Amino acid sequence: MTQQVMTEKMPVITNGVNVTALYETLEAVKATPLIADFRFRASNKWMGGDRNHTTITGFRGACAEQTHQMGPFEMDNAEPPVLLGGGEAPNPVEWVLHALAGCLTTTMVYHAAARGIEIGEVSSELEGDLDLRGFLGLSNKVRKGYHTVRVRMKVRSDADPETLKALAQYSPVYDIVSNSLPVEVTVETMSR
Amino acid sequence: MTQQVMTEKMPVITNGVNVTALYETLEAVKATPLIADFRFRASNKWMGGDRNHTTITGFRGACAEQTHQMGPFEMDNAEPPVLLGGGEAPNPVEWVLHALAGCLTTTMVYHAAARGIEIGEVSSELEGDLDLRGFLGLSNKVRKGYHTVRVRMKVRSDADPETLKALAQYSPVYDIVSNSLPVEVTVETMSR
Repeated sequence: MTQQVMTEKMPVITNGVNVTALYETLEAVKATPLIADFRFRASNKWMGGDRNHTTITGFRGACAEQTHQMGPFEMDNAEPPVLLGGGEAPNPVEWVLHALAGCLTTTMVYHAAARGIEIGEVSSELEGDLDLRGFLGLSNKVRKGYHTVRVRMKVRSDADPETLKALAQYSPVYDIVSNSLPVEVTVETMSR
Repeated sequence: MTQQVMTEKMPVITNGVNVTALYETLEAVKATPLIADFRFRASNKWMGGDRNHTTITGFRGACAEQTHQMGPFEMDNAEPPVLLGGGEAPNPVEWVLHALAGCLTTTMVYHAAARGIEIGEVSSELEGDLDLRGFLGLSNKVRKGYHTVRVRMKVRSDADPETLKALAQYSPVYDIVSNSLPVEVTVETMSR
């Protein structure tokens, strides 16, 4: 009997996701929508030429300030020599592919877990096509960012591909990249 | 005379950017637009639960396959405990802020250099507001990604803020995040 009681209290873990906690989160958000308001943050500093450095220390969410206990996280941007940089780090459009790959994967895995769909492996290959003439200001007809992004995901699962794709498309970064979003840029200068 | 000849051959460097090479790139792209076709790539692998790992080894650009000489670059995604993860790395929407900050900064610096505008320092603070009800599927009216992103840039320069803001807005990642973009997702399954 003792063992059975303990089993009932054990959280359900599917795909490495605590599904019990996931459903508790869903119920908490339904009861108190303010819990769902998140504000993520990053600070960046130019290091000269093609290099700059980001620090991420925490965010606001679940009605509280949250500090990354394993942070602060530090990361760099750079440009390869063919784009006039020193090649010391990925460039910003490559970082976008990293964010997109990760978000589609995590989203598929979490949403599958919530539905009891087991996943064994996920791998993905991403490509982003960019015509540099937009960035260079050589044509108003060419956009500055990617004009197309392709994501090929391979998933070990008994679920059908269309279901898994629909789950992945709950991804926040997929939404950010696919759809338009207001980005408010303000610039303040200090004299030299 | 020898010294003067050498001076004439020295590249112009502004803001740490080789402006001579930048103008050579512009001329080369004008002559051969194919040089401007870039294809960036990333591979990602799920590591269980909230964790996944990206590898970036190279890209196509300037009519050739380019390998990151200081790569392959490796980076992780994770989720904080409040989002049911182990908190071992930034999450994908935080990586988007890193990419955006870096791209606005590099773009401002490069375009300023091309115009002879000297920049002494750049720092930026980014915030992205996200209502988790979209990701959780609790409301069709709430988008899944950020609904607003704010970027505050501080720049040491004698140029006026509006000029610098316009230069930063040549940023590819600013375009990717601000505007809609076709993201083609395909999912292939292997049975368990």
